[in-house]
Amino acid sequence: MNTSTALLTDHYELTMLQASLADGTAQRRSVFELFARRLPDGRRYGVVAGVNRLLDALEQFRFDERAIAFLADRGVVDQVTSDWLANYRFSGDISGYADGEIFFPGSPVLVVESSFAEAVLLETVFLSILNHDSAVASAASRMTWWAGGRPCIEMGSRRTHEEAAVASALAAYIAGFATTSNLEAARRFGIPSAGTAAHSFTLLHDTERDAFTSQVDALGKRTTLLVDTYDVAEAVRTAIDITGPELGAVRLDSGDLPSLAGQVREQLDSLGATKTRIIVTSDLDEFQIAALAPAPVDGYGVGTSLVTGSGYPTCGFVYKLVAREDASGELLPVAKKSVDKISIGGRKWALRRRTTAGVAEAELIGVGSRPEDDGDDRELLRPLVKGGEIVGRTTPAESQAHHLKVRDELPRFASQLSRGEPAIPTQYVGDYAAQNPFAPRSHT
Amino acid sequence: MNTSTALLTDHYELTMLQASLADGTAQRRSVFELFARRLPDGRRYGVVAGVNRLLDALEQFRFDERAIAFLADRGVVDQVTSDWLANYRFSGDISGYADGEIFFPGSPVLVVESSFAEAVLLETVFLSILNHDSAVASAASRMTWWAGGRPCIEMGSRRTHEEAAVASALAAYIAGFATTSNLEAARRFGIPSAGTAAHSFTLLHDTERDAFTSQVDALGKRTTLLVDTYDVAEAVRTAIDITGPELGAVRLDSGDLPSLAGQVREQLDSLGATKTRIIVTSDLDEFQIAALAPAPVDGYGVGTSLVTGSGYPTCGFVYKLVAREDASGELLPVAKKSVDKISIGGRKWALRRRTTAGVAEAELIGVGSRPEDDGDDRELLRPLVKGGEIVGRTTPAESQAHHLKVRDELPRFASQLSRGEPAIPTQYVGDYAAQNPFAPRSHT
Repeated sequence: MNTSTALLTDHYELTMLQASLADGTAQRRSVFELFARRLPDGRRYGVVAGVNRLLDALEQFRFDERAIAFLADRGVVDQVTSDWLANYRFSGDISGYADGEIFFPGSPVLVVESSFAEAVLLETVFLSILNHDSAVASAASRMTWWAGGRPCIEMGSRRTHEEAAVASALAAYIAGFATTSNLEAARRFGIPSAGTAAHSFTLLHDTERDAFTSQVDALGKRTTLLVDTYDVAEAVRTAIDITGPELGAVRLDSGDLPSLAGQVREQLDSLGATKTRIIVTSDLDEFQIAALAPAPVDGYGVGTSLVTGSGYPTCGFVYKLVAREDASGELLPVAKKSVDKISIGGRKWALRRRTTAGVAEAELIGVGSRPEDDGDDRELLRPLVKGGEIVGRTTPAESQAHHLKVRDELPRFASQLSRGEPAIPTQYVGDYAAQNPFAPRSHT
Repeated sequence: MNTSTALLTDHYELTMLQASLADGTAQRRSVFELFARRLPDGRRYGVVAGVNRLLDALEQFRFDERAIAFLADRGVVDQVTSDWLANYRFSGDISGYADGEIFFPGSPVLVVESSFAEAVLLETVFLSILNHDSAVASAASRMTWWAGGRPCIEMGSRRTHEEAAVASALAAYIAGFATTSNLEAARRFGIPSAGTAAHSFTLLHDTERDAFTSQVDALGKRTTLLVDTYDVAEAVRTAIDITGPELGAVRLDSGDLPSLAGQVREQLDSLGATKTRIIVTSDLDEFQIAALAPAPVDGYGVGTSLVTGSGYPTCGFVYKLVAREDASGELLPVAKKSVDKISIGGRKWALRRRTTAGVAEAELIGVGSRPEDDGDDRELLRPLVKGGEIVGRTTPAESQAHHLKVRDELPRFASQLSRGEPAIPTQYVGDYAAQNPFAPRSHT
């Protein structure tokens, strides 16, 4: 998209800019960090997605004439601020977790270093992208983990905002989904799309046989026929009668799926269609996918629960000023004092502490200084932007591969769907580590 | 936006198109309807939003060269289908509920009449828009109802996809919100935006006094000062010391808001700042807004719970073929046979049945024929598109006024936040009414 992203921003970012330009603090060197104070209730881990979209948004973050005219007309900014905005280019450094990386409470998912003015403007759009995409990826990863080798198909576009749908398809792919139904996601990100027919196609025709014949004529015998518009057993008979045993798959979109899948498998086998797969798609989530593990199912289509983060449609990421230059030019850690909203001042570094066997055992966060790698650890912050230049892009395929690799590092119980603690504890080291709000716990 | 919306579509809409073009059923006259089988668990009513955005999306629903090249390259469509897509213009009729209208289970929120081919392609993007925007508006309406005369400020952009944020701001405005923090929504839809400062602005400065002084210098004494970065009582003293009693408002973003608001009100009054308002903004939802009704609060800022539909981020709208031409040219009602996913075949009409006092008492849905107005009823379906021409646009201000007016028709208990039945029953009349899955209940 060539559209400016600059107005995807909260009004107060502009008023803060104007006041800081007037009093001279706008140029103070600052560190903002993006992190989650906690995981959604009971989740064992979170998955980062949206980093590449965020870099695209940063590239398009320019105040064009139309944006500035709007801000000036509305009285949001004065002339000095308008002039500053017209020349806005982010010139600082950003490091962050990669798309597909796992995160935990306190993980410094993004570290933004620049002047206050340059960084504060990016707050809203950075949070929007990472809060949305990571919520979807976090849910998607639980689904693909439980689906095992069976492919998961993303088909939730209709249940979320039309552009959120495109982003959701990418987030799901990063977390291991095989395909999406969303054509714009397929075009924009180059990921695979798939789809065959809905009930309306069967209802459009005078008979189910007419509909199946038409679909097979158009798409070939390897297509997937939807067999639950009228009577499933009759539809399966009709389908195999038309295609013979070459039929690619049948799809079930209603009913008691575990027992229905068993019946359909038996019927298909009895008709000689032993290679015809069974795809199920009725309001699935990670719990139903787990429950269907023993059933003869060959693929899962997931919609609503995926694009709504399976109960947690946003990640709770916040973007906080953690350090800024003082009058003498020193970088000073800062944090709001609050009983219910905890932040730790000071710039962070992060390692995934691993055993010699490569199993993750802690999220090690250095405050004010880089923690020491004990030889088996993995660096989590990657350079994304250096002096305003984007350096950290990855492809969707790389992000998916990264996710599957780092998920494998987690202790096995991280896949549990029951509610519990994060799979590994967050541990702070270095200056200000004593502020640690996430008391380290021991895991057996 | 001048971007094509044509690929915001599920892959299978295109494969169905191709098969139906090949077998000749593509041109069958069809009626698709968009409706919800139920309201989210316990909700008393839903609010339609997204209709105007949907009309914009329809206007941009064109398969440009880039889209067709992508579809052909990927093998999604053949040459015949590509040629058909290149000339695609929706030429049918659409009627629907207005933005701001109330809906109930089974309400025919959108009725699309055209050839099968023209209507089936619109399924995904229509559902995306209405499912998202109406979920937000439905939550927002409960908030504004309980806020009473106190303004609600939409500030959830950072907790949802960056474009969903823009749509959420409009949906909230339709449901009675006063302002949004989202600048792009303000620009695109002409709705009011507002914002002053975050904690980072206070932390940027050497002292809280420096920060307040800077903000007042930039924005004037009528601004809102955020007083909970360090110690609230001290911040309030500092604020009034700087501005005197003219200070516009203070904002509280943490702590036990009912008691804190009381303390701050007393302190402001004792300092002579009796007109200074108190705005609260900490993770509010409709339940907390209701709980704060007795507290001396003057405005509510709502973020996460608004943009995520307060527990229900999607509306459950579906888009179903309910009637289509048969081989003899007659329009035939159709519906999937299913125990768990009920649809009623046949084209629908809808009236809000009202008492002579103007109180809503039933959602009257005519199946196959228009129900008779008893004199006090209100027509719910409005012409939106006629022969492909968009005729039904409304402004955000009109939509908000419409919402507040029709919400007033509901029986008073519709505002209850406890879980319960829809505020009025859905009643079917005419042909096929016997299929009614929503058993009429009597209300006292």
